[in-house]
Amino acid sequence: MQYPEPIAKLIDSYSKLPGVGAKTASRLAFYTLTMDPEDVKNFADSLSTVKDSITFCEICGNITSKDENPCAICMDSSRDRSTVLVLQNPKDVMAMEQTQEYHGLYHVLNGVISPSAGTGPEDINLPALIRRLSKDDEIKEVIVGTNANTDGEATAMYIARLVKPANIKVTRLASGLAVGSDIDYADQLTLIKSIEGRNEL
Amino acid sequence: MQYPEPIAKLIDSYSKLPGVGAKTASRLAFYTLTMDPEDVKNFADSLSTVKDSITFCEICGNITSKDENPCAICMDSSRDRSTVLVLQNPKDVMAMEQTQEYHGLYHVLNGVISPSAGTGPEDINLPALIRRLSKDDEIKEVIVGTNANTDGEATAMYIARLVKPANIKVTRLASGLAVGSDIDYADQLTLIKSIEGRNEL
Repeated sequence: MQYPEPIAKLIDSYSKLPGVGAKTASRLAFYTLTMDPEDVKNFADSLSTVKDSITFCEICGNITSKDENPCAICMDSSRDRSTVLVLQNPKDVMAMEQTQEYHGLYHVLNGVISPSAGTGPEDINLPALIRRLSKDDEIKEVIVGTNANTDGEATAMYIARLVKPANIKVTRLASGLAVGSDIDYADQLTLIKSIEGRNEL
Repeated sequence: MQYPEPIAKLIDSYSKLPGVGAKTASRLAFYTLTMDPEDVKNFADSLSTVKDSITFCEICGNITSKDENPCAICMDSSRDRSTVLVLQNPKDVMAMEQTQEYHGLYHVLNGVISPSAGTGPEDINLPALIRRLSKDDEIKEVIVGTNANTDGEATAMYIARLVKPANIKVTRLASGLAVGSDIDYADQLTLIKSIEGRNEL
């Protein structure tokens, strides 16, 4: 026996999502049957339109609506145009914006250099950063905010090597203890970073 | 800063699914952007049509396509029409069918009697079972296959009390050790059930 076709198809679609196996997919499909019809309709509409209405900002590479390109941040004249924070993906931009402490511009790589995954500098939004820096004289500092792991560090070093000759300051987000964390739970590499980067009180 | 509207809406839709929080919802939404367009289209189509094309079988209460009611199992003349296995939901039917060992009919309650959740006998597909048994003289045995927990047991007792006076045999799926399990990992109630239901070799 098979599930009726409409539900079998929906289970199949759910199971294409990352982290969703066969059991979860059928649980989600049956839950969908019990959902508010309006919510299901909105869900279907969002799926139908999202790919066609989202694009990447022609300046910074962040996601933006097709009818707002360059994106809102790139077009915001109140922001500090001398600093560019380089991040791996749009979710990182969101995290930074939520702090309300950074007021410069962004550049989103939409990936990271990873020899093990076969991702080179040309496969991410890095050539656009170099072009951007060569054209835009206002930019005085590039802050590299790639993740604090091997690939992120390697990408940071690569960017530093490319950008420094253009007489632009290159900095890296600080590594160290997460605020609120216990020292005896921190891993050794984080502790070493926190000693190396210690600040005077 | 907010995500662009199309993606914010999709995140909102994903977060309405059970077990999907804000972080997972945005991960799924960004993953959707990278999916094959054909897959996303099929996903949206399935969502749009599933609610309108699925209904409950007028005899057994299992899910079925709108254009196949009564369902395939109820209409299958090769099945043993003297036995009805009462299950909590359509997924249980699928699990039973996959064993290929049960050839009788089903009755799906689409729920369970649960005083703590305020679900009474009238809130599940139980009145239909009683009507079905009173009309259909072929049925000689009702096997109660509700889950082996408090609500499932209570529902089984309730069904037994209702059905027995009609001179129909009422049985319950066996409780005991799961095949392949270790005795020292089994819980006490399961061990008690396995002693009570011991079989002669």
